[in-house]
Amino acid sequence: MARIDWQNGKVEMVHGSGGRAMQQLIRELFASEFKNEFLDQGNDGAILPLHLPCSPDGARLVMATDAHVIAPLFFPGGDIGCLSVHGTLNDVAMNGAAPLYLAAAFVLEEGFPLADLKRIVQSMAQAAREAGVPIVTGDTKVVERGKGDGVFITTTAIGAVSEGVELSGANARPGDKVLVSGSMGDHGVTILSLRESLGFESELQSDTQSLQELVLSFVGRVPGLRCLRDPTRGGLANTLNEIAQQSGVGVHLQEAAIPVKPVVASACEFLGLDPLYVANEGKLIAICAPEEADTLLALLREHPKGRDAAIVGEIIEDPHHFVQMTTRFGGRRMVDWLNGEQLPRIC
Amino acid sequence: MARIDWQNGKVEMVHGSGGRAMQQLIRELFASEFKNEFLDQGNDGAILPLHLPCSPDGARLVMATDAHVIAPLFFPGGDIGCLSVHGTLNDVAMNGAAPLYLAAAFVLEEGFPLADLKRIVQSMAQAAREAGVPIVTGDTKVVERGKGDGVFITTTAIGAVSEGVELSGANARPGDKVLVSGSMGDHGVTILSLRESLGFESELQSDTQSLQELVLSFVGRVPGLRCLRDPTRGGLANTLNEIAQQSGVGVHLQEAAIPVKPVVASACEFLGLDPLYVANEGKLIAICAPEEADTLLALLREHPKGRDAAIVGEIIEDPHHFVQMTTRFGGRRMVDWLNGEQLPRIC
Repeated sequence: MARIDWQNGKVEMVHGSGGRAMQQLIRELFASEFKNEFLDQGNDGAILPLHLPCSPDGARLVMATDAHVIAPLFFPGGDIGCLSVHGTLNDVAMNGAAPLYLAAAFVLEEGFPLADLKRIVQSMAQAAREAGVPIVTGDTKVVERGKGDGVFITTTAIGAVSEGVELSGANARPGDKVLVSGSMGDHGVTILSLRESLGFESELQSDTQSLQELVLSFVGRVPGLRCLRDPTRGGLANTLNEIAQQSGVGVHLQEAAIPVKPVVASACEFLGLDPLYVANEGKLIAICAPEEADTLLALLREHPKGRDAAIVGEIIEDPHHFVQMTTRFGGRRMVDWLNGEQLPRIC
Repeated sequence: MARIDWQNGKVEMVHGSGGRAMQQLIRELFASEFKNEFLDQGNDGAILPLHLPCSPDGARLVMATDAHVIAPLFFPGGDIGCLSVHGTLNDVAMNGAAPLYLAAAFVLEEGFPLADLKRIVQSMAQAAREAGVPIVTGDTKVVERGKGDGVFITTTAIGAVSEGVELSGANARPGDKVLVSGSMGDHGVTILSLRESLGFESELQSDTQSLQELVLSFVGRVPGLRCLRDPTRGGLANTLNEIAQQSGVGVHLQEAAIPVKPVVASACEFLGLDPLYVANEGKLIAICAPEEADTLLALLREHPKGRDAAIVGEIIEDPHHFVQMTTRFGGRRMVDWLNGEQLPRIC
């Protein structure tokens, strides 16, 4: 991996892709400068103790934040408004927590149509209502024409972690099973197809949705649940590489078991994309003890948002922390970190 | 006030100025679509109940968020990094709360020098360390060249409100005194002078600083404290107009009592600005019961960040909720809401 040139280097699109270059920037700059035990947890959102006079052990909060810069702003299945609510609530839910409150900050570009802004804000409001989480505070800034791109929305959510729930990307152990809650790649392929006007748009639809109900339907009922993660930027492949590194294990996937919709597979083939690297905005990965995998699978499938859940692989011992896959044809291949920039501005 | 044209209207710079147009956009769009009792509090940050099994009454959290789009990114006295920490921590502190945790989300423009990004991140880290508040989670997005402006930073903070503290812009009552913690206009005038290369830069310096220590030094000791607010965008004038409206009162200021540094006054005169409308990033307004004003003044002046505190006016009855001022020359004038766009991208 190339060294970052801190003297003459520039920010590149690849620094936002969810892949290796982004990991490196986060590790060498943000994580190193901001260093603290909470940020070091390395999950999508931090678990925070809240010491109160009434409770010697205190409560545990989760806090998660996401900047949304997706282009285009409107797409089949959603828009930047509902996406910005779902994305951040999902990060809280992946910690096994019930989201409580949302904050929203807008950077608007001068000249942006107010009618579009209204549509976006209404979509946020509806997504927040559906999730039962109020948007309690906010901020609005305006930048000159050509210094932004319509609207960027940063949402931040806090939630409360239930007692006894301890999920982390660092908890996976050899033998554990890897599950996904549904088909991979829907969101990313929808956006790219739309951006390139490829004509798949009529059949494709983003999967953007909030996952908290799904998570809360099973999280207390599977004691061997190790980790939940939503495979957004960088898709299933990057998320599993992150978990493999955090837990110090390897992952072995079965390609035939990974649900991918036929239209997504066709669009990916046409675009030269691998659906394993494509962003999802309404799906989760769950890792759990092998003896509870069938129970978890059944619980996921009971819920409409987990209907197409599947067991797609297992955690293995591997000192190199590789993610590998048995292909449909029985071969074996590496599923490496995303190296270049596959899909910029996908969320 | 002109009606917003929701069909053909566009976002204008004035929608971000902190003045009347921004208030209107917030009221008619965000507050109306997101409507809930917490957002309706109308302060810079929302007070949130946290119901825990251990505590029937629960604890109270504060959550505040701010998008920072200041240009230029570096200025005498600070940069977008420390400003983005101070600004949001101050919003929490204005609720009489101790900030606990910070989240940070970055929108980076392709081509932005990594050396500048590092300098900004280091400045954030130092500001967070000085305030004793860790940055616990974050996000990084990259947009194409020409779709952003270097770096935008949205920070969100949560804090815990001490028992018995009940501050709100809705609490001011006729007879109450209005105090400021120091000189007005330093930050905004520094930025504008720098942007216009006016040559005042050698003497001017932003006042960006975190105010939590100052607030926590007096907040439990003045039972008649009604409200704290940091006069950022729109300055003292807008902030007092907001409070007058929230509380259903008027405000009467004494111009001669308002501290303004001579160099700030000169630069304002040269630029045709009124220092009362210019943003501050390290000052607070306090409103308190008349019998406690001298105590509060003494407590403010005891702290290095409140050394130049002053009593600058009082709350009066006024069905029109006007802010008025007795000028240096004994005349009387209205201090209306900022109407146009005075200083874009000041924070």
